[in-house]
Amino acid sequence: MPRRGEFELISALYAPLARRHPGALGLTDDAAVLAPPPEGQNLVVSMDTLVSGVHFRTDDAPDRVARKALRVNVSDMAAMGAAPLGVLLSSALSAAEDDAWMDQFTAGLDHDLTRYGVALLGGDTVATLGPATFTVAILGAVPPGQHLARAGGRAGDAVWVSGTLGDAALGLRVLDGALTLPEPAAAAALRERYWLPDPPVALGVALRGVATAALDVSDGLVADLGHLCTASGVAAEVEAARVPLSDAVGTALAQDPALMTSVLTGGDDYQLLFTAPPDRDDAVRAAAAGVGVAVARIGGLRPGAGVTVRAADGAPLTLAEAGWRHRW
Amino acid sequence: MPRRGEFELISALYAPLARRHPGALGLTDDAAVLAPPPEGQNLVVSMDTLVSGVHFRTDDAPDRVARKALRVNVSDMAAMGAAPLGVLLSSALSAAEDDAWMDQFTAGLDHDLTRYGVALLGGDTVATLGPATFTVAILGAVPPGQHLARAGGRAGDAVWVSGTLGDAALGLRVLDGALTLPEPAAAAALRERYWLPDPPVALGVALRGVATAALDVSDGLVADLGHLCTASGVAAEVEAARVPLSDAVGTALAQDPALMTSVLTGGDDYQLLFTAPPDRDDAVRAAAAGVGVAVARIGGLRPGAGVTVRAADGAPLTLAEAGWRHRW
Repeated sequence: MPRRGEFELISALYAPLARRHPGALGLTDDAAVLAPPPEGQNLVVSMDTLVSGVHFRTDDAPDRVARKALRVNVSDMAAMGAAPLGVLLSSALSAAEDDAWMDQFTAGLDHDLTRYGVALLGGDTVATLGPATFTVAILGAVPPGQHLARAGGRAGDAVWVSGTLGDAALGLRVLDGALTLPEPAAAAALRERYWLPDPPVALGVALRGVATAALDVSDGLVADLGHLCTASGVAAEVEAARVPLSDAVGTALAQDPALMTSVLTGGDDYQLLFTAPPDRDDAVRAAAAGVGVAVARIGGLRPGAGVTVRAADGAPLTLAEAGWRHRW
Repeated sequence: MPRRGEFELISALYAPLARRHPGALGLTDDAAVLAPPPEGQNLVVSMDTLVSGVHFRTDDAPDRVARKALRVNVSDMAAMGAAPLGVLLSSALSAAEDDAWMDQFTAGLDHDLTRYGVALLGGDTVATLGPATFTVAILGAVPPGQHLARAGGRAGDAVWVSGTLGDAALGLRVLDGALTLPEPAAAAALRERYWLPDPPVALGVALRGVATAALDVSDGLVADLGHLCTASGVAAEVEAARVPLSDAVGTALAQDPALMTSVLTGGDDYQLLFTAPPDRDDAVRAAAAGVGVAVARIGGLRPGAGVTVRAADGAPLTLAEAGWRHRW
């Protein structure tokens, strides 16, 4: 397995991507220099780490690993209603990431930097004796006072979600061999969603001034709605039948209805979960239609604490898993 | 070994530190929101990763690990002439980092966030099956056009360095048992410099408009001066006898003069290496005196390429190691 050295890797692979942004200084300096966000906008910063074998499968295609590392960070900008500007990437590489692996990783990174209009500003490249670990820090911008925080939800607000939920969780089951679907296309669609979430960043921006609170569904609907409720000091009720499902998830549920627990509690969807007063229903739908993203009203906030998911008959569901979290 | 969960770790340890900066949103959100740097200043961003067993010793004290993770990033700001504003911290933790370890880690982080006036803005906390890996992204500010880049050196410029060099490289040898000194105080001083570099961030700011190029000595004097020369398109000559040495390094060299190679090529010093035209000698000295940092003029730039280190008799030294880089 031929391996470039640290400096060769930066100059051969990363520097060409960074040349698009003059502030990256060709990755030859200690740091990048950026003009402040335009028109006095606030800066939004976040960071997410993906560890091989934990956040992605060791045999996942390298280009998908790079794209997922970028997209989970873009998702944080979407959740804040921020427009992403640029990223820093730290790559801690093991012996398994040879030149061919890194070539594909960089091609995937290149693709998605362009797709989301994000600049590669810098980072670090180090060796590790453990699994490959990629950390992305992302910078975005939002006008003062317009960011979407978790704490803004109020009793009476409706609870909304974008896209469809459960695809990534069931896709991971397909990849792990725990779920077999008769239709290859459905299985492929689920896998693809696990590998490549598509955070609705334009929706986040469109929801400025419309949504009262937002976050991205990374730990699972129930857990993330719980985070929103805790931050906002409210309780939430969700109707399971209103949770938007893809055709592929529908196929899986028809085969095994018990998978609904995975749909409601599985992570990695990276859709937007947000709240808005009921009198903004039209504004929510208009914002979503304007950026071509599907949204569904799945429940509401009320005084209290905790998240209740109700079945079609109104009975609260008992969910075995409250959401994904790290086991050390 | 009791272990807090991911969310407990964030709420118990990191959130109290982040409360000092309102933009961190108590670490309960997907991202931090910051006002732009004051008075139209540019933003400077950088990122550095420390892997246990690679960038720090597995048995290093946890508080020192946290402080080093912060300080190597502060050093990047110093090298750019930027004032550090805040950091994001990603902690990928193995089973070895139990509650007691993390308590000490957080205490060290707390100490140095205060020391350098840096805010904890957010980050990520994940589990890894490999060695603990800490990635810090740092944000700083510098007035437009005043950042110190590597590419600004010109033939005729003098080459300067702050503080003393070689302490960290010899400190690592002491820790590894490869170097034994008769004086315990000298050995302790060297170890301390390996564990806790002290980047001269105030000097970086003071050198705005004075230095033509700068970087921090992380890979070693010869390698880092080589980076500056490559970026600036010049060659450099350094007089070994002018390289500033601490008393402890002097003691070690008296015992074994061959250690001078480690002084010249060893990494982890995190002092500033910078250039300035000779007619700014007084300005350099005044800037350094103003912030109480020692500086030494160790050589100069000339047309050409590469770095030459000359012995007292003018003969070029042959150095076995050109500088630290990762072996995969």
